Amino acid sequence: MNTLQALRQRFNTTLSAELAKLEHIPPALHDAITYSCIGGGKRLRPILAYLVAESLGCSFDKLDLPVCALELIHIYALVHDDLPCMDDAPLRHGKASSHSAYNEATAVLVGDGLQALAFTWLSQAPGLDAETRLALIATLSTASGPSGMVGGQYLDLHPPAHIDRNFLQNLHDLKTGRLIRAAAHFGLIVSGCKDKATYTTVQNYATYFGLAYQAQDDLLDSTSKTETLGKPAGQDIHKHTTSTMMSLTETKQHINDLWKLAQAELDLLGNSAKKLLEFTGQIKQRDY
Amino acid sequence: MNTLQALRQRFNTTLSAELAKLEHIPPALHDAITYSCIGGGKRLRPILAYLVAESLGCSFDKLDLPVCALELIHIYALVHDDLPCMDDAPLRHGKASSHSAYNEATAVLVGDGLQALAFTWLSQAPGLDAETRLALIATLSTASGPSGMVGGQYLDLHPPAHIDRNFLQNLHDLKTGRLIRAAAHFGLIVSGCKDKATYTTVQNYATYFGLAYQAQDDLLDSTSKTETLGKPAGQDIHKHTTSTMMSLTETKQHINDLWKLAQAELDLLGNSAKKLLEFTGQIKQRDY
Repeated sequence: MNTLQALRQRFNTTLSAELAKLEHIPPALHDAITYSCIGGGKRLRPILAYLVAESLGCSFDKLDLPVCALELIHIYALVHDDLPCMDDAPLRHGKASSHSAYNEATAVLVGDGLQALAFTWLSQAPGLDAETRLALIATLSTASGPSGMVGGQYLDLHPPAHIDRNFLQNLHDLKTGRLIRAAAHFGLIVSGCKDKATYTTVQNYATYFGLAYQAQDDLLDSTSKTETLGKPAGQDIHKHTTSTMMSLTETKQHINDLWKLAQAELDLLGNSAKKLLEFTGQIKQRDY
Repeated sequence: MNTLQALRQRFNTTLSAELAKLEHIPPALHDAITYSCIGGGKRLRPILAYLVAESLGCSFDKLDLPVCALELIHIYALVHDDLPCMDDAPLRHGKASSHSAYNEATAVLVGDGLQALAFTWLSQAPGLDAETRLALIATLSTASGPSGMVGGQYLDLHPPAHIDRNFLQNLHDLKTGRLIRAAAHFGLIVSGCKDKATYTTVQNYATYFGLAYQAQDDLLDSTSKTETLGKPAGQDIHKHTTSTMMSLTETKQHINDLWKLAQAELDLLGNSAKKLLEFTGQIKQRDY
């Protein structure tokens, strides 16, 4: 099992255990929450946070609950983005999306509940002092709020008449980049990193990572099959994506350039970022 | 101007200023957020928190940002509850509900964004130490999450085949009571109250207040006019409410008993709870 698989397994085990521990939730809602959280997902953000912390000498256990909270925010956003009034997506991670498996009202409430739960978990994260937990809450709520992820989803659904590459880059930064950068930030905060140069390097790395990842996502959406993606291929084709603004060759070159920039930042961290570099290489090669 | 009006004005001024200060939000989303937050609402929860703190000798200014966060959670819940897939309500506070004024996707995102913003504000609340801010975050996220308010809304939309008064009491406690109790809890936390007896008295007061308020709400829904309520009268008539399980006389007696129990708890606090008692009397007399 490689590092990525091991961390994904660690994360999935923790998340399942935390969800099973929850009490006083109406059982059918608890089921819908578990259904939406378990059985799919690359767990990219938790793995990124774990590996940034590891590169700074921090043990994984301090990250266990914070990265669950981080992933809950990502999951709630997917559940709401899939709603009929948003992207109207019937499939997610190769199975029925939450509103298709349950109903719309349940999917709205699953998302609302997951967001609240994320902040409960951060407020209680063990092994961290109050200031650290507050920094995680401020980071995650800002990254996912109206000036971050929610703002990005709004722009994606209500684009201006004239779209250019600046708009697209800003959209991607808000919709995907902010949460990926928050993941890297979680690693920095929990490891207690105070070195300004390291902070900047890790944040630059996460910015390039986020841009490369989103551009790659758009490319895969337009070139892969539904079975490989686990969600309907081509569903973003009507939207303004990197792939609709550049030729296939240009897009591939653009993505490759971004991954190179991300990897160049990691080179600045030296040998301690070895696993992070390995992980970045694996994501670069992904086909789903 | 009485105490209630003065505090409502204080709250509305603070909330408007905080919303106006927000940056980097897509302007049209910012508009929809402001529309949903301003121009209506009794501000019951903020006023309750202010007055509990005041009865314990705490100055109002420490509460200003925390009660804004508290109200954002209440507002987000109303925006989502009004959605077509939930209560499908065209009116709120005498004007078009958020999804009617904008569109469904925008209303979902307004709610999602308000929830995130509430936790950002609590993480940054001035004049409070980190432990206090964390206690507010834990209180609000738990009260509003899947084992609280969100769970209550789920049960309201998916009631069991057989409904009894126990189910109804639990439903009201989750859907309305938990956030009202959180408001009282905010007052206790910010004032730094450590006296166990006072804690219990204030929490009992808030519990009776919440039950009385919800039963009164159901009664007003079935007996008032749309113009008085500012939302469609009779829209809860298909739901299982206090009014559908008791006669009108029984319901009025039940509500009166609950207010008396709430007021009896305040009597235990003596003269310092004078304004809280006055406020409770005003809410008891409300017709909207």
